[in-house]
Amino acid sequence: MSYIAPIKDMVFNMEHLAGLEQVAQIPAFEDMGVETAQAVLEECAKLNESVLVPLNWEGDKNPSFFKDGHVTTTPGFKEAYQQYCEGGWQSLQHPAEFGGQGLPKTIGAACGEMLNSANMSFALCPMLTDGAIEALLTAGSDDLKATYLEKLISGEWTGTMNLTEPQAGSDLAAVRTRAEPLPDGTYKVFGTKIFITYGEHDMAENIVHLVLARVQGAPEGVKGISLFVVPKFMVNKDGSLGARNDVHCVSIEHKMGIKASPTAVLQYGDHGGAIGFLVGEENRGLEYMFIMMNAARYAVGVQGISIAERAYQKAVTFSRDRVQSRPVDGSMKTSAPIIHHPDVRRMLMTMRAYTEGCRAMATVAAAAYDASHHHPDADTRKDNLAFYEFLVPLVKGFSTEMSLEVTSLGVQVHGGMGFIEETGAAQYYRDAKILTIYEGTTAIQANDLIGRKTGRDGGQTAKGIAAQIANTEADLLKSGSANAKAMAARLKAAREAFLNVVDFVVAGAKASPNAVFAGSVPYLMLTGNLVAGWQMARALLVAEAELAKGNEAVFMQSKITTARFYADHILTKVPGMRDSIVDGADSVTELALDAF
Amino acid sequence: MSYIAPIKDMVFNMEHLAGLEQVAQIPAFEDMGVETAQAVLEECAKLNESVLVPLNWEGDKNPSFFKDGHVTTTPGFKEAYQQYCEGGWQSLQHPAEFGGQGLPKTIGAACGEMLNSANMSFALCPMLTDGAIEALLTAGSDDLKATYLEKLISGEWTGTMNLTEPQAGSDLAAVRTRAEPLPDGTYKVFGTKIFITYGEHDMAENIVHLVLARVQGAPEGVKGISLFVVPKFMVNKDGSLGARNDVHCVSIEHKMGIKASPTAVLQYGDHGGAIGFLVGEENRGLEYMFIMMNAARYAVGVQGISIAERAYQKAVTFSRDRVQSRPVDGSMKTSAPIIHHPDVRRMLMTMRAYTEGCRAMATVAAAAYDASHHHPDADTRKDNLAFYEFLVPLVKGFSTEMSLEVTSLGVQVHGGMGFIEETGAAQYYRDAKILTIYEGTTAIQANDLIGRKTGRDGGQTAKGIAAQIANTEADLLKSGSANAKAMAARLKAAREAFLNVVDFVVAGAKASPNAVFAGSVPYLMLTGNLVAGWQMARALLVAEAELAKGNEAVFMQSKITTARFYADHILTKVPGMRDSIVDGADSVTELALDAF
Repeated sequence: MSYIAPIKDMVFNMEHLAGLEQVAQIPAFEDMGVETAQAVLEECAKLNESVLVPLNWEGDKNPSFFKDGHVTTTPGFKEAYQQYCEGGWQSLQHPAEFGGQGLPKTIGAACGEMLNSANMSFALCPMLTDGAIEALLTAGSDDLKATYLEKLISGEWTGTMNLTEPQAGSDLAAVRTRAEPLPDGTYKVFGTKIFITYGEHDMAENIVHLVLARVQGAPEGVKGISLFVVPKFMVNKDGSLGARNDVHCVSIEHKMGIKASPTAVLQYGDHGGAIGFLVGEENRGLEYMFIMMNAARYAVGVQGISIAERAYQKAVTFSRDRVQSRPVDGSMKTSAPIIHHPDVRRMLMTMRAYTEGCRAMATVAAAAYDASHHHPDADTRKDNLAFYEFLVPLVKGFSTEMSLEVTSLGVQVHGGMGFIEETGAAQYYRDAKILTIYEGTTAIQANDLIGRKTGRDGGQTAKGIAAQIANTEADLLKSGSANAKAMAARLKAAREAFLNVVDFVVAGAKASPNAVFAGSVPYLMLTGNLVAGWQMARALLVAEAELAKGNEAVFMQSKITTARFYADHILTKVPGMRDSIVDGADSVTELALDAF
Repeated sequence: MSYIAPIKDMVFNMEHLAGLEQVAQIPAFEDMGVETAQAVLEECAKLNESVLVPLNWEGDKNPSFFKDGHVTTTPGFKEAYQQYCEGGWQSLQHPAEFGGQGLPKTIGAACGEMLNSANMSFALCPMLTDGAIEALLTAGSDDLKATYLEKLISGEWTGTMNLTEPQAGSDLAAVRTRAEPLPDGTYKVFGTKIFITYGEHDMAENIVHLVLARVQGAPEGVKGISLFVVPKFMVNKDGSLGARNDVHCVSIEHKMGIKASPTAVLQYGDHGGAIGFLVGEENRGLEYMFIMMNAARYAVGVQGISIAERAYQKAVTFSRDRVQSRPVDGSMKTSAPIIHHPDVRRMLMTMRAYTEGCRAMATVAAAAYDASHHHPDADTRKDNLAFYEFLVPLVKGFSTEMSLEVTSLGVQVHGGMGFIEETGAAQYYRDAKILTIYEGTTAIQANDLIGRKTGRDGGQTAKGIAAQIANTEADLLKSGSANAKAMAARLKAAREAFLNVVDFVVAGAKASPNAVFAGSVPYLMLTGNLVAGWQMARALLVAEAELAKGNEAVFMQSKITTARFYADHILTKVPGMRDSIVDGADSVTELALDAF
């Protein structure tokens, strides 16, 4: 069950679609261009391919284990985590001020993809630590930063996000965990949090919980939520660990996938109160949490790409090895490796096209993030921020939904062997299903896309993207190749469908919310399909140009074929989705409640 | 985790779509009309709801267990199987001559649906026995029939199908198991068979294996395969059990789903040879096996409907209970059960529409089967056979593929809880994934649809179905309601797309097989979508008429809404699929083999 990091595709995206050389001209990222990317990715691939890949199936067989309040992770995880930290991988995207390496997200996201391809269960621990770092950087006091950031950025300590409670899943307004202020400015925290990823484990000596809670007397709903740091062990002035805090793991979940990643139920304050430190100001917790969540949502989208890539590679290997039946075109008189059968090709190409399309979209989004945070020009920052924020629900929602189809096809390519656990394809199918759920279900992403990202500016960002797509269509027509013309036609049909839907959404969001929200997820899927397809169209143009220059013929020709496949087999879904969103709202909500 | 058999929908389909009263006029099925159906289904529901439903999750937690050649099934399965047999459920569709009840498939298939909804792992045992009975009825000698049929039909003994070998999955030409003729007319069988469902278990005292093998000196390929009965225990003249035969279970698989159902590796002849009895004539084994397989393929299609129904019911229950967030239309000032949220409705309606559409299609197919086997008029038999055989790959392929989407939505409706195994939704997701694989993968079904069912008669059956669909469109326009008109428009677009694809398939099947087979599965999915949608269109017309008569208002109104949803959200996928099949073949097979 090997894995080869797709470095060539990653660097192609960075260089030709995301403009990494422009990113590297931003002062904060000086010299962090294509060469740096290549070197970092190669180093990153080594660790992942040799250390983390072999532990992936092991983690499924020997999941994290709970006993007497302690969680023992899969054998080998602790040592691998140490190697991960020693290699400096936790610090990649974080500021040099606290010991980080300050790499752009454009490069860092590709490292995240590799890590998640290698071992998604393992990768969740660093991902959650990243979230905690982000929150502290954004809103933590100098004191909190000084106490926690270096240890988190080195990976010596890990972080968690504590949102969910038994009665409050997607609905944070329902959070009940309470915080009582103490005279010294700290708080005592009481409550139960569930679904806490790496909420307890044995890989690091301390765990820094970021916890949503209500200060006594706070307003109801989301406006009364504050964010607290609650460390597992208190930290002494000199940075050494002090007393055990009153937060305890009472159980971990028995899950369908990502079994090595412990999902904890945490009990706060059962023995007098857990000591918590306010992050930022009271009642602004949700705002800070959204900063963490936006980073985490992007990262989960990347997980979708990761697991799709892993499933694709496994399916390719199997279909080269497995000999079964003669080719339908009579080209061989004996049984052939199944990769010769057209339907196996269709499945592999579907997996490949989705994966490449979403990777390209995510890379472009990452570059926009980098520019939005670090570009010297304020207008450029603003434009990039709007673009990035529009893309986050697509990266999260579309890349994870497609990963369900891709991992399902991965099992399918294996036939009966795919259903046998030891084969490994089933694990990806089981693991992937969490991705459309955590960090906000696809419906939550779609609400974000409709509300904050489309409705709020009257569809302006959406239409701006459509205008850019129209430019790409013009470039395709200018190229004039059969592939470019076919792509242009599919892209045009999809873009026009998108514009119809944007008008529908903007017009109806307030007037007929049920009708608009009946099509929320289809709108997200349509838009993700289009934007990823647009990147494949841009890639096709680059590949044609590179091919003309005589560069990397096999890679460039494959990119063209994959883009064409995307146009013919994935973009073609879009007009039907428009019909269903624009004309089909009534039948979604019409059935009497008691008739279900 | 309860389940209520959808008897009302089943009887509606039988009565109004499948013409059960006409079936009941066939002499073989005299008086087996709607009243009989209602009575049988009610009785069947009792057993399933009370005995088999509670064992489903149990079977997932405590799967079948292998030790020293023996398989111990999940606690409770043995007793449940006894109740199943005592109730006469194994004998339902089998001939009275051997102790069966001779019910039409139109009714029997609905009982099969219930059994599989209740407990798919359990249901596999009777399903495989049905296949063995079918093979013996078709081709067994009088002696074999006398020895085995009554015991199989009573359920006292169970049956298996032994096709797959490690090197021969979908490709039966590669079968290597060999049979050496003995002077007394029996054979000694040697070989290894894998993936044998209920190949070993403790629920019955004997197991009757139907085994594909090659007689020494037989031609190569599929024309040299014969079919044998190999009983686990030899049967004495008086019907009592004799010596243990030389077929032994050496292991069972560790699977992603249907864990309670033991999937055996069987070793034939390791201790001198397993005694086998030829079924029919030498070298005609594949032909007989296809008879079993056609029945089994239909039955697996029904499993898709079963698991979809179960997942739907579970999701409905959860979404009524789970309170989370306020409705988007502001209609409630407090958090609401999530069934009030439009996207949850969309997911539930998608699950419902697919399930009802496929159930209707399967019921209509079953009635065609009954007429094709038992109608007194030869032409009627012939027409019905062609129709039934066209529908089998759709029932198998489309109903199981849709069950992947439906069970995935089932998990999604549950949010984070869906990923926790104890919730139960994940089991359906894991169980369903085998359905698109066993008894011929979706690609194998699609090859059958293209080759035997479309190409062979030059598209005549396909075009005949399109003509019938056009009649339904005319009826819809005559009705003139907004729903009927909308359905007519979607049906027309889908039918026209279907006809384009049929022309493409017929023209290209020989001339450009790679191009046609590149679209094989999409063709199957398009056609299944259309034919199930056609049945929903017919159901819509019936429901409008019944509503006008004042019958069953809630049910009929729901049927209309569900049909409309199907038109708006499922049939709308068809034109895009046409584009992808007809224009998109090249990009499927173009990528260089070493570029994957």
